Amino acid sequence: MSLLIVGSVAFDAIETPFGKIDKIVGGAATFAGLAASYLYNHVNLVSVVGDDFGPDDMSIITSRGINTDGIEVMKGGKSFFWSGRYHNDMNSRDTLVTELNVLADFDPKIPASYQNCDYLLLGNLTPIVQIATLDRLDMKPKLVVLDTMNFWMDIALGDLKKVLRRVDVLTINDAEARQLSGEYSLVKAAEIILQMGPKYLIIKKGEHGALLFGDGQVFSAPALPLADVYDPTGAGDSFAGGFIGYLAKVKTINFTNMKNAVIYGSALASFCVERFGTEKLQNLTSDDIRNRISQFIRLSKFDIND
Amino acid sequence: MSLLIVGSVAFDAIETPFGKIDKIVGGAATFAGLAASYLYNHVNLVSVVGDDFGPDDMSIITSRGINTDGIEVMKGGKSFFWSGRYHNDMNSRDTLVTELNVLADFDPKIPASYQNCDYLLLGNLTPIVQIATLDRLDMKPKLVVLDTMNFWMDIALGDLKKVLRRVDVLTINDAEARQLSGEYSLVKAAEIILQMGPKYLIIKKGEHGALLFGDGQVFSAPALPLADVYDPTGAGDSFAGGFIGYLAKVKTINFTNMKNAVIYGSALASFCVERFGTEKLQNLTSDDIRNRISQFIRLSKFDIND
Repeated sequence: MSLLIVGSVAFDAIETPFGKIDKIVGGAATFAGLAASYLYNHVNLVSVVGDDFGPDDMSIITSRGINTDGIEVMKGGKSFFWSGRYHNDMNSRDTLVTELNVLADFDPKIPASYQNCDYLLLGNLTPIVQIATLDRLDMKPKLVVLDTMNFWMDIALGDLKKVLRRVDVLTINDAEARQLSGEYSLVKAAEIILQMGPKYLIIKKGEHGALLFGDGQVFSAPALPLADVYDPTGAGDSFAGGFIGYLAKVKTINFTNMKNAVIYGSALASFCVERFGTEKLQNLTSDDIRNRISQFIRLSKFDIND
Repeated sequence: MSLLIVGSVAFDAIETPFGKIDKIVGGAATFAGLAASYLYNHVNLVSVVGDDFGPDDMSIITSRGINTDGIEVMKGGKSFFWSGRYHNDMNSRDTLVTELNVLADFDPKIPASYQNCDYLLLGNLTPIVQIATLDRLDMKPKLVVLDTMNFWMDIALGDLKKVLRRVDVLTINDAEARQLSGEYSLVKAAEIILQMGPKYLIIKKGEHGALLFGDGQVFSAPALPLADVYDPTGAGDSFAGGFIGYLAKVKTINFTNMKNAVIYGSALASFCVERFGTEKLQNLTSDDIRNRISQFIRLSKFDIND
C-alpha cells in the first residue's frame, strides 16, 4: 500500500507583487508530495536532481516522512531550474528562465520497494517519461492520476494521447481542456476528453475553483477567496497531491469520494498560495487542515427545501 | 406587499456564434421581471418605452402576470435600443449600437398602487434615476437591491456612491468590484465596498458562478456548466430578478436565505442563456425550476465527515 508520485524536484526563482526570492525548492513532485503527506503516510517520490540539491533542500521533503529513495542525484548535474514573474492579477505569469538541466534526460527508476503501489500520480512531465513509468510498474495501480500542460499538447500530442488511454484521472486547467478537445464549452470538452481514456476529468480554474466530470456527473468545487495570494507556484501540484492523498487515505474510488478529494486538493492548494514556495506546506497541523475544510463547507453549503 | 423593479425595457439586436436576431424585446427590467415572476406574484415594473413598443412586445411581460402600469409610453418616442456581437468565448462582446432614445430623459414615475413596496430592485441605470426612485417612495422598502456597471463608475462615481449608501445589496461583476474598490483581491474589494453602504455584496462571475459577501461570511455559488450558451444577454438581470424574487417569496432576510436566493438567481440566469433574448424565460414550468435547482444541489453538494 503506497502512493507513488513522479515529477520534478527543482529550484525556482519567483517574483510576485509581494516580493522576490532567488532560489527556493520547488518542483511538481515536491508540492504534490508535501500536500499528500498530510493525508497519507506512505508517499514515495521518483525524480532526479543535480548534486546542487543539498541535504537541507532534501530535508524539506524528508521532514514530512516522504520516501526519497527514488530521487536520483546526478553527480555533476544541475537541478531543474524555473524562474517566473507573476503579474498583478496573479493569474498570468511570464516564464523568465527554464533550465531543464538533469530533467532533460530524466529516466525514471522505480526502486523495488516502490513496486505494487496502489496510487500513482504522474506529475507534469514529458508524456514519454509518464509512459515509461507505467511500463516499469509490475502491477497496474488501483488509480492513476495524470497532470499535464499545454506545452505537451503543442509538441507531443501523440504521446500524450497514448498515455491518456492508460490513466484514470486527468487534471488540466480550463484553457488546456479547450485546447485538448477543440471545444470552448467545458461540458463538451469534458465529453471529448473522457473518450480519450480517463474515467474522470478535473478542470482546474485557479481562483474560480475546479470542475470534476465523470460517471455521468459533474461537481463544482469553489476556491477559497483569499485576501492575499503570495505565490501561486505549485498550487496545481498541491491540488493533485491533496486529491490523490485523500483517495489513498479513504481507499474507495467513487464519485462521492472523488468530490471530497477535490475539496481536499483545493484546501491544500489554498494553503500553498498563502506563502512563497513550499513554506506553508512544510508545517501545517491537522487542526489547520480541519479548519480549512470547515471553511470550504461553510463557503459552499446551502440548504434549499421547498 | 410587492416587488418593484425599475430598469430598462428595450429592443436588442444580438449576434452570437449561434445566430443573429435583428430586433427582440430586451432590457434589464424585462429580464429581471420575468425571472422574478416565477418566484413571486406581485411584480411591478417602472420603465419607459417609445410608441414603437407594441402590444405584442408588451405581452411578453404581461403574460407573466407582471404589472406594467408603471411603464410610461412616450408618444413619438423610440425605445432604448442596444445591439451587440458576442465573441466565440461568449464572455466578451462588442457593443455595436447604443441608442438611448426615450431612456435618455427617463424620469421614473411611481404609480400610487406601487407604493409601500417591500422589495425594490434598482436595475442598471444612471445613479440619478436610482436616487430619484428612492426619493419618490413613501416608505423605505424592506430590501433594496442595486445593479450597476463600470460605465457609471467611469462617469458618475459621485452619484453612484450616494445611492450605494441607501441600498442593502449591490450586484456587480468581478471586474467592476475591482474597479470600484481599487483592490484586485475580491476579499479586500468586498471589505471596501461593504463600507460604502451595502450590507451585502454579490460578485457575479458569469460562467464561474457568484460570490456573496456579508454578515462576516462568504458564500460561493457555482454556475451550471452548460453545453451551449446561446445568448448571455440578460443573464445578470435574470440573476438579480431571481435573487430578489426568492427573497420576496420567503420574506425573511438573513444570510441563509440570501445564499438560497443566489442559487435561485443563478438558476434563472442559466435558463436565460439557453435561448436568444427572453425566449426561455417566457415559458418555464415549476418543474423546470425545481429540476434546475436540484441540478445546482447535485453540482455543489459534498459530504465530508472525518
